[in-house]
Amino acid sequence: MLPVNPERFLADLHHLRSFGASGVLKGVVRPAFSDPDIAARKWLAQQYAEAGLTTQFDPVGTVWGLAEGRSLLVGSHSDSQPEGGWLDGALGVICGLELARAGAEAGVPISAVSFQDEEGRFGVTTGSRVWGGFTSLDDADRLTDTSGTTFAEARARMADLAGDFPDPKRFLGFLECHIEQGPWLDKAGEAAGIVTSIVGIRDMRITFHGQQNHAGTTPMHLRRDAYRGMLAYQQKIIDRFRNVVVPETVWTTGHVELYPGSHSIVPGRCTFSMQWRDGDRDRLERMEEIIREAIAETAEELGLTAETTGMLALDPVPMDPAFRKALETGAEAVAPGRWRSMPSGALHDATSVAAHLPVSMLFVPSINGISHAFEEDTAEEDLVAGLRIMAHAAERMAGA
Amino acid sequence: MLPVNPERFLADLHHLRSFGASGVLKGVVRPAFSDPDIAARKWLAQQYAEAGLTTQFDPVGTVWGLAEGRSLLVGSHSDSQPEGGWLDGALGVICGLELARAGAEAGVPISAVSFQDEEGRFGVTTGSRVWGGFTSLDDADRLTDTSGTTFAEARARMADLAGDFPDPKRFLGFLECHIEQGPWLDKAGEAAGIVTSIVGIRDMRITFHGQQNHAGTTPMHLRRDAYRGMLAYQQKIIDRFRNVVVPETVWTTGHVELYPGSHSIVPGRCTFSMQWRDGDRDRLERMEEIIREAIAETAEELGLTAETTGMLALDPVPMDPAFRKALETGAEAVAPGRWRSMPSGALHDATSVAAHLPVSMLFVPSINGISHAFEEDTAEEDLVAGLRIMAHAAERMAGA
Repeated sequence: MLPVNPERFLADLHHLRSFGASGVLKGVVRPAFSDPDIAARKWLAQQYAEAGLTTQFDPVGTVWGLAEGRSLLVGSHSDSQPEGGWLDGALGVICGLELARAGAEAGVPISAVSFQDEEGRFGVTTGSRVWGGFTSLDDADRLTDTSGTTFAEARARMADLAGDFPDPKRFLGFLECHIEQGPWLDKAGEAAGIVTSIVGIRDMRITFHGQQNHAGTTPMHLRRDAYRGMLAYQQKIIDRFRNVVVPETVWTTGHVELYPGSHSIVPGRCTFSMQWRDGDRDRLERMEEIIREAIAETAEELGLTAETTGMLALDPVPMDPAFRKALETGAEAVAPGRWRSMPSGALHDATSVAAHLPVSMLFVPSINGISHAFEEDTAEEDLVAGLRIMAHAAERMAGA
Repeated sequence: MLPVNPERFLADLHHLRSFGASGVLKGVVRPAFSDPDIAARKWLAQQYAEAGLTTQFDPVGTVWGLAEGRSLLVGSHSDSQPEGGWLDGALGVICGLELARAGAEAGVPISAVSFQDEEGRFGVTTGSRVWGGFTSLDDADRLTDTSGTTFAEARARMADLAGDFPDPKRFLGFLECHIEQGPWLDKAGEAAGIVTSIVGIRDMRITFHGQQNHAGTTPMHLRRDAYRGMLAYQQKIIDRFRNVVVPETVWTTGHVELYPGSHSIVPGRCTFSMQWRDGDRDRLERMEEIIREAIAETAEELGLTAETTGMLALDPVPMDPAFRKALETGAEAVAPGRWRSMPSGALHDATSVAAHLPVSMLFVPSINGISHAFEEDTAEEDLVAGLRIMAHAAERMAGA
C-alpha cells in the first residue's frame, strides 16, 4: 500500500469545503467557473506543485498535477451542484492529491486531476467530455447555462491560467474514488463498492402545446390543457414501465414549466424533463419507445401537439477488469467481507476518460443515500477506508 | 334607446388597442401601472372630459368620468393580462364612454369608469375591491406582484393624478358589458348573454415536501419525490370530483414549480396552484373538502409533508333582478331569440361594485371562446349589438 496520510487527507478535504461553504451543514455552493470554484482550483494547483507535480490548467478549466513519465491518473471533480454536498467529486480530488503525494514519497508516479463542470452547469461532465473528444471545444463553447451564459464566456474567466490539454498517452489508466450517492452500502453497513459499470442515461425535454385560455370561462370538456397532457403522459408511463424495468432502473422528472404560469390561465404549454437510467442499453431503448408512444397517444387523446428536444444518450460503460481486480484485492485487505461489486447509477468523469484509458471506480457509503443536497455526508472512517483501498490498488496498477 | 354612435364606438375601441399593442394579432400588453396603461388612462380622462363629464383619478389609479347629480355608472377596466386580448375590459370601458356621450346628448346622466388592476397584477380586481371596501388601502399597499414590486410603489407612479374616491351614493347602479371569454355564445351563434350571477372562486397554493436527492442513485422505492406527490394528488382529484361537479364547474392548475428544478435531481419540493370555480357555495366547499383530503392522503401514502397557503375565497354574487330585466328587454329588441341567461365563470369588477350598488352584466360572444391570449376577438357586429343592448338598458335604468 502507498504510504498515505489519513490526517493530511482529511484536513485537505475539509479545507476544500471552505471554498463556497454554504453555511448549512457541510454543504457547498461551488458551481463550475464560480469564484469559489476558481479559487479552489488555484489552491489545488498549489497543492499539486507542493507535491512535486507539474501543474497545468487546460483550456476548459480542468486542473492537472502531472508526474514525470508515464503515470497512473487519479482524481475526480471539484465543482459542485448549485446546492451540493462537500464530498461529491471533492473526495476523489483529494484522494488523487494524497495518492500523488504518497506516490512521490514512494517513487511511484501518480498524476492527479480535477475535471471542470462535471456537474453539468453547461452540459454533462463537460470538462472530461471535451478532453475525451466527445465534444469539440467549438461545440462546447456554444453550450449555455440556465441564465444564458455561454461556456465560452464562462471559461474566459480562467483564460489567464489556460494551457494545453495533456496527452492521454502519458497515463496508464484512471482511478476515481467517489461517494456512492445511493443507499445500498449504507443500508448494508458495508465499507466499499467496486463499480462494475456506469449506467447509461437518456435525457430529453418534452413539451405539450395546447390552447392558453381563461381558467374561469373555459369548460373542462373544451380545454386543451397542456398540464393535463403531462399528467396523462405520466400515468401511462407508470403503467407501462412495470413490465420493463428492474429494481436498479430509475426515471425522473426534475423540472416542469407551465406557460404562462398564472393561477387563472389554462396553460397553453407545458415543458418538462424526462430522464431515465439503466445498465442495459436494450432496456434504455425499450423505455424510449414507451415514452415516445405515450407522448404521441397523449397528444392525440387530448387534442395537443407534442415535441421533444435535447435528447442526450450516453450508453453504459464497463469498468476495466484488471483495475477492478486491483480494487477488489485492496477492498478485501482493508475491509474484508464488507464490500460488494455494484453498478454506478450516477454518471462520472470516468465515463469520458474510458475513451482513452482503462478506468475503474471505488464507492464509499453515503449516509442515508443522500447526495446533491447540503445533507450529504460519509463517516470519516469510511472516507479513510476508501483512501486505503485506493492506495492498495494504485500501488499495484501504477507499479505494474 | 340612447343615441349611440357605433362608428365612434368602434374607432375608440381600436384606438385604445394602440396603447400597448403587442404586434401579434390584435393583442395588447398593458398590465396595471405600466407605461401603456397609464397613457391609456390619461387618454380616457381626456375623452371623458370631452364628453362633458368631470374627470377624476382615485388614489389607486381608477379613472372616473362623473356626470352631474345621481347617475348610472357604466364601465369596466382598461388594464390587461401580461399577454392580453384587445377586448377584455376595454370593450366595457369604451361602451361606458359611448353611453356617457349618448347620455349627455339625450340628457340622461351616465357616468363612466375604468377600474385599475382588474387583471390582478397585485391581487384580484384590486382597484374595485379597494373602492368596494373589501381591501383597505393599507392592506392593498402591501400586496406585491411576481417581481416583488409593491402596490404602494406601483400606484406612486400615478400620484400626480390622484384625487379622492367618488362617493358610491352618487350612482344608481352599475352596468358592465364584457366579452364572454368562454365558448357558449359563439358555439350557439347567439349575440348576447345576460349574466345571472358571477361564480365563486377558491384559490390556493399547495406544496409537497419530500427529500431532494440524486436522480441516478436513488432507487424508485426509496424516493420521497415531491413531484410524484402532485401526480398522485391530481389523480385522486380527477376521480373524486366526478360525483360532485356539474358541467359549469371548472378547476385549474396553472402554475407549477419544482425545487431545485434540475433534470438530474429528485425534486424535494413541488409547489402548484389549485383554483376552482362554481356558482354554488356548497359545491365549492365540498370540493375544498375533497382537495384537503386528497392532499393529506397523498402525503401519508408517499411519505411527504404538505402545506397549503394563500387561500382566496370569493363567494358567488347574484346580479340585480331589475337590471337583468332591463338587459333582457334590450337583448330581445336588438337580437330577438338570439340571447340567453347564463352565469359568469370569470370574476369581474361587478363583484366588488355589488357591495354598494345594484349591478348587472352583459356578455357578447368570444370567437372560439378564446381570452387572456392575443388571439382573443369578437365580430364587430356582435360588439355593436352589445352596445345597442346596453343603450336600451341604460336608458331604461338611468331614466327610471
